[in-house]
Amino acid sequence: MHTDLVAALDIGGTKIAGALVDGQGRILVRAQRPTPARENGETVMRAVEAVLGELTASPLWQRAGALGIGSAGPVDASAGTVSPVNVPGWRDYPLVARVREATGGLPVELIGDGVAITAAEHWQGAARGHDNALCMVVSTGVGGGLVLGGRLHPGPTGNSGHIGHISVDLDGDLCPCGSRGCVERIASGPNIARRALDDGWSPGPDGDTSAAAVAAAARAGDTVAVASFERAARALAAGIAATATLVEIDIAVIGGVWARRAKSSSRPCARPSPSTPPCPSSSASR
Amino acid sequence: MHTDLVAALDIGGTKIAGALVDGQGRILVRAQRPTPARENGETVMRAVEAVLGELTASPLWQRAGALGIGSAGPVDASAGTVSPVNVPGWRDYPLVARVREATGGLPVELIGDGVAITAAEHWQGAARGHDNALCMVVSTGVGGGLVLGGRLHPGPTGNSGHIGHISVDLDGDLCPCGSRGCVERIASGPNIARRALDDGWSPGPDGDTSAAAVAAAARAGDTVAVASFERAARALAAGIAATATLVEIDIAVIGGVWARRAKSSSRPCARPSPSTPPCPSSSASR
Repeated sequence: MHTDLVAALDIGGTKIAGALVDGQGRILVRAQRPTPARENGETVMRAVEAVLGELTASPLWQRAGALGIGSAGPVDASAGTVSPVNVPGWRDYPLVARVREATGGLPVELIGDGVAITAAEHWQGAARGHDNALCMVVSTGVGGGLVLGGRLHPGPTGNSGHIGHISVDLDGDLCPCGSRGCVERIASGPNIARRALDDGWSPGPDGDTSAAAVAAAARAGDTVAVASFERAARALAAGIAATATLVEIDIAVIGGVWARRAKSSSRPCARPSPSTPPCPSSSASR
Repeated sequence: MHTDLVAALDIGGTKIAGALVDGQGRILVRAQRPTPARENGETVMRAVEAVLGELTASPLWQRAGALGIGSAGPVDASAGTVSPVNVPGWRDYPLVARVREATGGLPVELIGDGVAITAAEHWQGAARGHDNALCMVVSTGVGGGLVLGGRLHPGPTGNSGHIGHISVDLDGDLCPCGSRGCVERIASGPNIARRALDDGWSPGPDGDTSAAAVAAAARAGDTVAVASFERAARALAAGIAATATLVEIDIAVIGGVWARRAKSSSRPCARPSPSTPPCPSSSASR
């Protein structure tokens, strides 16, 4: 049997997604479960096994030659373990061994989810053809990954390019990671909303204090809401500039809900499917 | 004739140094001239030619198989040009072509000086045996370079690892590079002295307002002087942490006059010579 497909697993704090993917990046089979993020480690693993169960039940499964995992971090690719910040039941959790077990010994590769997104953008997306790229996601968190010298750069532990936790404000607010003024602490959706509230922004009659509501207020001209987005943009810019200074990138690709908002489009982006191209990312070549 | 030596050229804002080096890193011939940094480009080039003239006059010269240049940046390794901030007469100056000309067509390689120092620390110094390293110099400026995956990472233009110009304080003082709150703007010797003066430190009866004088005051317990050094240390730490987050380093090597002061040694470090090991660098493995 020709093993021309790859199985993919995306472990996030909200959902666990799986797929069978062909050599052109087309997704042939999909499966998904909510992440029972507050439950114990075994319960989380059962959700992973349910996703894998759907994939292995497919007649296409026998064509899968390997399985790749992109997981919320931190991960330890060399040890095959994960400790996602938002999944407290998993600390140094031996995900690679457990997935290998559940799939009958398929070769399994693990990297951080920001690095996985970078691999995808470099292979099929906005970073195609660029030898030195930073790809990032700005959403509930801020993550990223690097392509250096034409190749993905996961680093020894698989977490390289984690731009969300570089400090751009020495005297800034304490970040849960232990540092101060991290990019994520300023530029993630929840932090944009928090700062607007702290600075005196008031929600509308619906009481919605989400980042989406702050974005709507900013579009309507609310100066506090605008200021919070502007500071987020400056933090992102400083993080991108630091990356360019340290490793010389020639493109920064920004994905995630805020990138789309920054493009002033309120249209929800279609989910990628076998027949449609991936969501457009924002990108800027220097 | 066996070409077992390499010629080396170090272009700085204060001096231009040259050497012939063997395969073990021993310096067999040295030459040096002050940099006429305020003169026009041709005058600066004549100082380079004077250094090269001393090297080519050596009977060992015929054993030199190639020439490597580490230059104050920015450099453009792909174009073979340099534009050192402190040498205004050189902008996009075709240094590689001019040096090749002056040496009878020897193969010439150009990288930034921070990258060159990193190559040396990885080959012969404190980063030996480390596959992922940041090496930096904290002195009149703050520069650096990276080893990634066991290899020097100069980047496409030869300036990678330039940690001095990543911003760690979004709202900080404007840096001559155009950004704000750069590591160098906080942690370089002149900036440590400037901040101490701004914050109310007064020099002694000799009127010395150099960073060395601030360091002496800090050792004597002056709180303003101590605070300026502490902020410099925090800026350096934030820069090192950002680098570790972005590319996963397992060692940071800090050289330069301030690293030695941080080690509380007022003994001037002996210059490296063929018979003595290089100045000790401070290093910390994670």
